[in-house]
Amino acid sequence: MPAAVVASSLLLPPIAKPLKPPSAVPIRTLSLRPVPAPLSARSRLLGRFPIRAAVHVDKETPENERPDTCLLSADGPESPAPIRVRFEKMIREVQDEVCAALEAADRVGKFREDVWSRPGGGGGISRVLQDGAVWEKAGVNVSVVYGVMPPEAYRAAKGKTGIGCGDSAVNAGPVPFFAAGISSVLHPKNPFAPTLHFNYRYFETDAPKDAPGAPKQWWFGGGTDLTPAYIFEEDAKHFHRVQKQACDKFEPRFYPRFKKWCDDYFFIKHRGERRGLGGIFFDDLNEYDQELLLGFSTECAKSVVPSYIPIIERRKNTPFTEQQKAWQQLRRGRYVEFNLIYDRGTMFGLQTGGRIESILVSLPLTARWEYGHQQPEEGSEEWKLLDACINPKEWI
Amino acid sequence: MPAAVVASSLLLPPIAKPLKPPSAVPIRTLSLRPVPAPLSARSRLLGRFPIRAAVHVDKETPENERPDTCLLSADGPESPAPIRVRFEKMIREVQDEVCAALEAADRVGKFREDVWSRPGGGGGISRVLQDGAVWEKAGVNVSVVYGVMPPEAYRAAKGKTGIGCGDSAVNAGPVPFFAAGISSVLHPKNPFAPTLHFNYRYFETDAPKDAPGAPKQWWFGGGTDLTPAYIFEEDAKHFHRVQKQACDKFEPRFYPRFKKWCDDYFFIKHRGERRGLGGIFFDDLNEYDQELLLGFSTECAKSVVPSYIPIIERRKNTPFTEQQKAWQQLRRGRYVEFNLIYDRGTMFGLQTGGRIESILVSLPLTARWEYGHQQPEEGSEEWKLLDACINPKEWI
Repeated sequence: MPAAVVASSLLLPPIAKPLKPPSAVPIRTLSLRPVPAPLSARSRLLGRFPIRAAVHVDKETPENERPDTCLLSADGPESPAPIRVRFEKMIREVQDEVCAALEAADRVGKFREDVWSRPGGGGGISRVLQDGAVWEKAGVNVSVVYGVMPPEAYRAAKGKTGIGCGDSAVNAGPVPFFAAGISSVLHPKNPFAPTLHFNYRYFETDAPKDAPGAPKQWWFGGGTDLTPAYIFEEDAKHFHRVQKQACDKFEPRFYPRFKKWCDDYFFIKHRGERRGLGGIFFDDLNEYDQELLLGFSTECAKSVVPSYIPIIERRKNTPFTEQQKAWQQLRRGRYVEFNLIYDRGTMFGLQTGGRIESILVSLPLTARWEYGHQQPEEGSEEWKLLDACINPKEWI
Repeated sequence: MPAAVVASSLLLPPIAKPLKPPSAVPIRTLSLRPVPAPLSARSRLLGRFPIRAAVHVDKETPENERPDTCLLSADGPESPAPIRVRFEKMIREVQDEVCAALEAADRVGKFREDVWSRPGGGGGISRVLQDGAVWEKAGVNVSVVYGVMPPEAYRAAKGKTGIGCGDSAVNAGPVPFFAAGISSVLHPKNPFAPTLHFNYRYFETDAPKDAPGAPKQWWFGGGTDLTPAYIFEEDAKHFHRVQKQACDKFEPRFYPRFKKWCDDYFFIKHRGERRGLGGIFFDDLNEYDQELLLGFSTECAKSVVPSYIPIIERRKNTPFTEQQKAWQQLRRGRYVEFNLIYDRGTMFGLQTGGRIESILVSLPLTARWEYGHQQPEEGSEEWKLLDACINPKEWI
């Protein structure tokens, strides 16, 4: 593994947390002129910047062909294949599966694909279907990152649960890490068809070489959540039921715990509203067996299509008024507010200079902010949505 | 002065700085149900929350009539009138003047006015013209805030320049302050007519009563900047020339200094672009005579109409294509990104629970984010704008 690049994107929201991106991180300047050759990764790491600024990203390189894997060859298949290999395979399959289902629902629009790599290893595949018959903007991205984290971040990540947590790692150097994820935001055109977001990711560090006894760290994170402009109880129940079924296959406490986590995370503080009807969300999860959590993440990711596509099929052709479209556009404004102000992944991606196009593909094609928009009348359909965003419901 | 409320809004961006709003500040929950009666200001201040959380806002109360002044009667006219009285008078006059000029340019749209007060004193007048013939959304707000700041914030604000800067204030209690400002963002419909933002504000504290020798603090801040989607050199030169004339009446170093400050402040880091063509911007300004800075702020605020309206008159009826409108909408997306991610005033207002409608009136009515929008072709009109946002020019 190269001593190389630390990167990020929308794919990896809460991996951000332990890295504590310093505001002093040098930000890559987008320029109309050719970008100067990056410093060698090593000089960047070993002194050129203070260690707090070790989170830094090289410019991605566009690729003409989709690789079989974004993993480095040292991580290649063996038997039994390591988690990172199986996780990348899973997210690549889910990307194909979700994109195929979205194209089938759209019937007209096709995904455009951008493949990119980073000099230090890793890369990604961004797929976007824009302005189709059903989809206004649908992004489904996978990415793989090889990086290094400062030892402070490693220690913070380790928390109190790691084995061998003495201070043996205090003098350790930067710790290599691996991260992979799938991330997607799907904005339909029809105001009765809900927006969906999902994101599943896996993170692991090497064991620090110069700190005997300090362990490898790993965790899983992710979630799936639904953001309609109008509530159909049947849709909300179906969506949550499929999420619960996925959870219940593994652990009865998962659904209530991750449902609440989701309601707490997607909260637009200044509005006192959640952005939508929630779903499930979890982060830094490592207190279960690795195999169990790989299975669980896989089950959740595979549940995206059955939890969502039936709703789209029911709503994609429902006639609507201009007023209903305008209400959807106002709710899209809330989506933008959440993503730009609160979403840790977006924030981290922007601060560290990740691929802007991939990070901001989560924003809707269009959004609207009206001054003095009347609070919806009590009992109206708009009011019901707002009420459920302010006071989260138990749908099942 | 009541020992009361600390508040904020779009009007007061960088006053935010010394207050360092804690993320733990309790945020008022917008609710469909009646809001519970606020804690008494005193109990909030003197123990109910830790001192770091002293930045907190009461819900504003809508008023039916515009008051002659938002100042407390103790601050009422005397001779010579104190700066705060003269500053409020000035911003109220400028609000009338700018609104009249905008309605005259629009010929169809009229401003809607919302007047509000806060229980502890102070209040504001928000005026918005939405969906007129010329204006998509034009907001011109004034507000007056009476508040208290924690003693740490007072000391931070005092910096090294205050008189009597020993540690005499170390044991002081919360320090009352006063702030007043005018703030405006004007988004026209026509893609050839530029967006304008301006904001002028005055801030002063009382002398802390229990810290002998600790002085009153005060400063001025503000600026005016232009954000077109297309560059007309004639417009940019005219706008900057009027700003320079206003500056030159007071101090030859003002224009170059505040022009650069503006270029530095309105920078969208993750894009490596400024949001527009700049103008002037200054903050925490107190190293000149108070009379001089009141005169200077007045001159700047009075320069808004002559620097901007002639540009609008030239561009408001220029025919445009759908492509040109789409480019304007993409640039509006950048405006949203700046305001929600970087603008200190917006951030502070949202964190402390200011009046959301007034804070976010700065957002355009509509904005757009396309995935994979082609970088404009070198030499095209869109490229020229982008180039000037990446590499700020000297216009005069």
